[in-house]
Amino acid sequence: MEFKSKIKTIEWVDNYSKMVDQTVVPYEYKFINITTGEAMFHAIRDMIVRGAPAIGIAGAHGVVLFAQEGESKFTDIEQFKIWLIDKAEYMKTSRPTAVNLMWACEKQIEVIRNSKSDIKGLIEELKQNAIKLENEDIEINKKIGDFGAEVVPKGATILTHCNAGALATVGYGTALGVVRSAYAKDNTIQVFADETRPRQQGARITTFELAMDGIPVTLITDGMCSYFMSKGMIDMVVVGADRIAANGDTANKIGTYTVAIAAKYHNIPFYIAAPLSTIDTSIKSGKEIPIEERSHEEVTHINGKRICAEGVNIINPGFDVTPHELIAGIITEKGILRPDYNKSIAEAFKG
Amino acid sequence: MEFKSKIKTIEWVDNYSKMVDQTVVPYEYKFINITTGEAMFHAIRDMIVRGAPAIGIAGAHGVVLFAQEGESKFTDIEQFKIWLIDKAEYMKTSRPTAVNLMWACEKQIEVIRNSKSDIKGLIEELKQNAIKLENEDIEINKKIGDFGAEVVPKGATILTHCNAGALATVGYGTALGVVRSAYAKDNTIQVFADETRPRQQGARITTFELAMDGIPVTLITDGMCSYFMSKGMIDMVVVGADRIAANGDTANKIGTYTVAIAAKYHNIPFYIAAPLSTIDTSIKSGKEIPIEERSHEEVTHINGKRICAEGVNIINPGFDVTPHELIAGIITEKGILRPDYNKSIAEAFKG
Repeated sequence: MEFKSKIKTIEWVDNYSKMVDQTVVPYEYKFINITTGEAMFHAIRDMIVRGAPAIGIAGAHGVVLFAQEGESKFTDIEQFKIWLIDKAEYMKTSRPTAVNLMWACEKQIEVIRNSKSDIKGLIEELKQNAIKLENEDIEINKKIGDFGAEVVPKGATILTHCNAGALATVGYGTALGVVRSAYAKDNTIQVFADETRPRQQGARITTFELAMDGIPVTLITDGMCSYFMSKGMIDMVVVGADRIAANGDTANKIGTYTVAIAAKYHNIPFYIAAPLSTIDTSIKSGKEIPIEERSHEEVTHINGKRICAEGVNIINPGFDVTPHELIAGIITEKGILRPDYNKSIAEAFKG
Repeated sequence: MEFKSKIKTIEWVDNYSKMVDQTVVPYEYKFINITTGEAMFHAIRDMIVRGAPAIGIAGAHGVVLFAQEGESKFTDIEQFKIWLIDKAEYMKTSRPTAVNLMWACEKQIEVIRNSKSDIKGLIEELKQNAIKLENEDIEINKKIGDFGAEVVPKGATILTHCNAGALATVGYGTALGVVRSAYAKDNTIQVFADETRPRQQGARITTFELAMDGIPVTLITDGMCSYFMSKGMIDMVVVGADRIAANGDTANKIGTYTVAIAAKYHNIPFYIAAPLSTIDTSIKSGKEIPIEERSHEEVTHINGKRICAEGVNIINPGFDVTPHELIAGIITEKGILRPDYNKSIAEAFKG
């Protein structure tokens, strides 16, 4: 039985990109149309669209939007290509940590480089490639979900951090893809969702999308995970990833590393669920992953209201790196990769 | 050099209890006068006053308030005593986890039992005992601070969770008493304060009182602790306690246990700072400590605004128990207790 999710996060429509505005979830569930490359850059930077796989697709859409804008400016295809590759490189810089963004923009750059068409034809090729990446994303997530479901115990409670769900992808989810596939087989499983301060993607987005799909979810604050683990109430942890190094070290939303340490202390398996496009084999370890430093207001304010005294210092890393030794497995579309990750990752890219 | 804090959290004045209203810090710093026993019960339950040592004093004040109310109702001292002990037992039930509350009410019950005075005289004895407990609390905290300061490395960054400061006590603090005493000797030390969801006592109260006293403080979200530990930016952890069992297991604000596990993983010493009145030698281990379950709205709402989808489940334990094996030492007014805690705690109560 296949699980049908109600959510489509991002979609190419005619000549624009249509996406769920994730800054207002769960208060509103509304769509926003992005019609220019620059608007897409800001939509990614300001997290109207977020989640590593989703911003990959957004980046691919952004390149199409720039291409459409360039159509009236250029007559020479080679000049057009130079300009457009430059725009694609710029699109990659909208956020630094999730490698899917670079990967998807690079896929569009390949199309640009290899195209034999004229300007109009190239734009059509980029559009088709973006739609292909969209469809592949859902297919890949379903494979991740199905592989992951095999290691979910009957009646399990699954803890997750941040949102690696339908709203972090085109429409099924990586970590929550595992949940959806497991739930389709066994509707006695349930989810515990970390709030995930500072931006509360767990509280705002994970609870929203699971409630929408009818999967039972309990919201907990970030500090509570160990308490519930010690009570035997958590059977496994599954989270997404923004970038995975060749040795399995995994960057994900800030707070993930703390959950992984707590899981290890309680002998609870801690899994990463991510497509191969999240693995950056060009870097040896997590030390090489750039960590985005985000605005201080994310920490000092919630819903526009200050929550602390004036005069405090703030450091706001958007991500942390969970070392490979804390990870029981990396659930990909090619199966669950196990330690030694240097070997299993290299093999996944061969096959 | 002694550190002078500007804060006096709770104080007996003439015939009422004057306290900082901690529900509005840091937005306002205002005092509230509690004039009846029932009002004190609610002030404790609703966390207008919070922090284990401070609610101990509040409980002692509450017994005086009930006594004052009883004065016009009774003529017989024995009848008055029976009624008042009943009220003191009721005051103990305003919150379940912090044992200081039970301890301080019990101190007042001893005064009631041992008094040879008439009703008026007994009320005066209870008042004087409450004021004595207040003064002792500050003296005890300063001793805790001075013992703790000895283990603070030069230029250290000290991580703390929740608020075990001047605003959790009468006026100097336990964990933040250690910080104040250390800062008086070495003004290059600094504090990292966990936000401490759900009620954000770290963000609201710890940053406020440290900023007020001019001690540098960096606010972080609860999930971030491991990130900063892995970067070598945290030298030690010091937190307060709500109840310590005979074996050293320590109940403190929810999230403390997670920080303790993270500290262990990074080989960073994790200390408890608490007066002996927080130690409950009647219980063998943390398993016997009752954990308060608090309202769901503390998790689902911040500043009155909902932060998650409708239909989510909530479990909201107010405290967790850190097992003794994660604790490097318990800093008390009689020195730093070290493992084996069964022995060192027993000895501290003898001496």
